Amino acid sequence: MSQANFYPVILAGGRGTRFWPVSRRRRAKQLLALDGKQTMLQQTVARLAPLAPARRFWVITNQELRPEILRQVRRLPPKQVLAEPVGRNTAPAVGLAAFLLLRADPAAVIGMFPADQVAADAARFRKLVQQAATIAGAGENVVVLGVKPTRPETGYGYIETGEQVAPGILRVRSFKEKPDAARAREFLQSGQHLWNSGMFVWSARTLTAALREHRPALAARLEKIAAAWGTAQFARVLRREYPRCENISVDYAVLEPRAAKSETASKLYCIPADFGWNDLGSWASLYEYQAGGAGVHGNVIQAAGSFELDAAGNYLHAPGKFVAAVGVKDLVVVETADALLITTRGRAQDVGKIVKHLEAKKSKKLL
Amino acid sequence: MSQANFYPVILAGGRGTRFWPVSRRRRAKQLLALDGKQTMLQQTVARLAPLAPARRFWVITNQELRPEILRQVRRLPPKQVLAEPVGRNTAPAVGLAAFLLLRADPAAVIGMFPADQVAADAARFRKLVQQAATIAGAGENVVVLGVKPTRPETGYGYIETGEQVAPGILRVRSFKEKPDAARAREFLQSGQHLWNSGMFVWSARTLTAALREHRPALAARLEKIAAAWGTAQFARVLRREYPRCENISVDYAVLEPRAAKSETASKLYCIPADFGWNDLGSWASLYEYQAGGAGVHGNVIQAAGSFELDAAGNYLHAPGKFVAAVGVKDLVVVETADALLITTRGRAQDVGKIVKHLEAKKSKKLL
Repeated sequence: MSQANFYPVILAGGRGTRFWPVSRRRRAKQLLALDGKQTMLQQTVARLAPLAPARRFWVITNQELRPEILRQVRRLPPKQVLAEPVGRNTAPAVGLAAFLLLRADPAAVIGMFPADQVAADAARFRKLVQQAATIAGAGENVVVLGVKPTRPETGYGYIETGEQVAPGILRVRSFKEKPDAARAREFLQSGQHLWNSGMFVWSARTLTAALREHRPALAARLEKIAAAWGTAQFARVLRREYPRCENISVDYAVLEPRAAKSETASKLYCIPADFGWNDLGSWASLYEYQAGGAGVHGNVIQAAGSFELDAAGNYLHAPGKFVAAVGVKDLVVVETADALLITTRGRAQDVGKIVKHLEAKKSKKLL
Repeated sequence: MSQANFYPVILAGGRGTRFWPVSRRRRAKQLLALDGKQTMLQQTVARLAPLAPARRFWVITNQELRPEILRQVRRLPPKQVLAEPVGRNTAPAVGLAAFLLLRADPAAVIGMFPADQVAADAARFRKLVQQAATIAGAGENVVVLGVKPTRPETGYGYIETGEQVAPGILRVRSFKEKPDAARAREFLQSGQHLWNSGMFVWSARTLTAALREHRPALAARLEKIAAAWGTAQFARVLRREYPRCENISVDYAVLEPRAAKSETASKLYCIPADFGWNDLGSWASLYEYQAGGAGVHGNVIQAAGSFELDAAGNYLHAPGKFVAAVGVKDLVVVETADALLITTRGRAQDVGKIVKHLEAKKSKKLL
């Protein structure tokens, strides 16, 4: 099933503050086993493993997370677990990988995957990624995986789709930034919009060319860093040049300018990702994922034992403890060795505010 | 301030299952520091200490709690911390103390006090207890402390009061068992009813005579046990006779039959206890006590630190942890080393059901 020239590039530099108090600076969301025995990063690697040998994987992360990542994915080449000196969003991260791969394999096809997403049907996931890689390997095509919306979500970007060019493959008409609630409802009702999953497939040649065209200064810096690869200077060059890179997403740097061209000239394609995608964006979406859907009312309890009386819709996480829930509904209660979070599923988006408060108070131990 | 012949008898054999998971078999409610540094038993002893020297205190408890009680009230005579071989309600407990005291001091006046109540104004409490002891010491009078109801509580017995015989002293017309909600509202509106606090004052002579009159079999067994006091046989006699004692409350055994006599013949008096009484019957009443009243909306948080955002009316207990509460209202969350309780103030009465469940499952570690 492994596909020649296919290189998974996993972006694992985020924090996931909405999973506080379990997620911390050195235990970011993607390094947690939120929904099973494997961490989300390990799941991402395992999901992709049949598509490429370990030596073709790259992981882009930061200095704080790199040691834990090396522990979690021991089979991957440590040199290819790259730590950004500072966070610079997705364009420099995947762009650097593209310039590095272009030198190693001019025919490289890159799949960019956030490390903190899940796919319920891994086989279907791989089938679509292979399809995307085939399209991306043929010329200058860019393929994005889109997810059919199930709610008027304001937390994601959207893809406006165009004509179908083959079964399951659509042209991309435009990329839409995170909408307000009214537009999100329009997008949902239109049937023409998909969530932007953040998973893209393109050749190293296509991506580097696009960066040179639309972000020449950024491309020049990334080329300079890539040129030092394998030399004693690499770490120094990376430390010097990377912080000077533009802080910009790959969507904004490359995809939106490209989408502004005519629909056929842009060569942007979208594959609807019908493999049970979930980005586990908060304790509430983790609840839905584990409870088995948005319409369910059971409790999701991670504990040594439990007693439930008139309790429904709760996400209760207290590993090692006996949890008793009486007369409570739709709560999120999460306990760690040093902290206890008590909120509701409806307010789970606000958990990041706790982290902001702790940052302002410099409560390092709790961050 | 110490009053000759006044003997505090503290009943400390209960469990307080509604304070699970903090209260356990060996850490009953009265042995917990629920509202401060001292445990409720220690507070009870301290509150009474100015009224009698330590050698006049008696504590009735059970085998499981006795070791911890001895640790908590080291100044009291260990021999006077009596462990019932089995729980037999209040009549045998205070009755045994009465027969023992009658032998030691025929003029003894007994004050019976549950170990798990609080009084905000200790000086006022002592003033009323002294007044009660004076009345009880003169003849066959029985004095009960009653509490002015503030809500239609169905969890307490009530006292129907009669004429005022002196400022702050009323005759008792009758004792009412725990009412249903409709009767509780009537009692509240009548202005003629007080909560039965479970605090009684009477002479040893009066109580033993009443037991002999109304419960002769019980009185005979208790006399037999008391007769063995100070001999090598005491423990054996206690173990043999006590389990055969009738399992009955002192209210039902003695007070109600007495109240059935004419109002003057009964010699039952009531003193309204305006000293900030609270029996801390549940996490909800502990919340009210600590928050400063029934009408308040703040959070009561026992933790190493906290962050509150749109959170009100919550009782949150997680000592040593940082607690973050976002968008939650009127919850009770209590964390211990092995358990986590999540309920609402409105359902705090149902915490006992968790203990029943654990008993049924024989989850001894959690009991």
